Amino acid sequence: MKAKIFVTLKQGIHDPQGQAIYQSLTTLGFQNVADVRMGKLLEVDLKETDQEKAESTVKSMCQKLLANPVIEDFRYELLGP
Amino acid sequence: MKAKIFVTLKQGIHDPQGQAIYQSLTTLGFQNVADVRMGKLLEVDLKETDQEKAESTVKSMCQKLLANPVIEDFRYELLGP
Repeated sequence: MKAKIFVTLKQGIHDPQGQAIYQSLTTLGFQNVADVRMGKLLEVDLKETDQEKAESTVKSMCQKLLANPVIEDFRYELLGP
Repeated sequence: MKAKIFVTLKQGIHDPQGQAIYQSLTTLGFQNVADVRMGKLLEVDLKETDQEKAESTVKSMCQKLLANPVIEDFRYELLGP
């Protein structure tokens, strides 16, 4: 089973990487860009066929390692089997 | 209009960041992880209401700045208006 995990900064948290990309885009002539936020995408292969177990594993991974709960939100999609 | 852009390493390209996360996860006791690949998620706000124009802008951004076509693939979703 595969999991796609999306980790994004919470609203209001300063995003210097996104700001740098925004500025590069405007410099390149993309004047219709209003804002850029940068996040992480993790593709995890799981040796697990049970949807429920996979879900609880992914949730636990995010809480323990992949996302910083103080400044980041996460969501995930499971693609099985 | 908002665009979600997913930038991932092409198959076969070495991913040290993903490997480091994989090792941390196994150290933490997640023994059912087979592989981890790390990618980028960009959320771009566009001052554009035309779907077709937005799409061509996003494609051009990816080709010019956001993805490295030698080692990375990109895909995107447009969420309007």
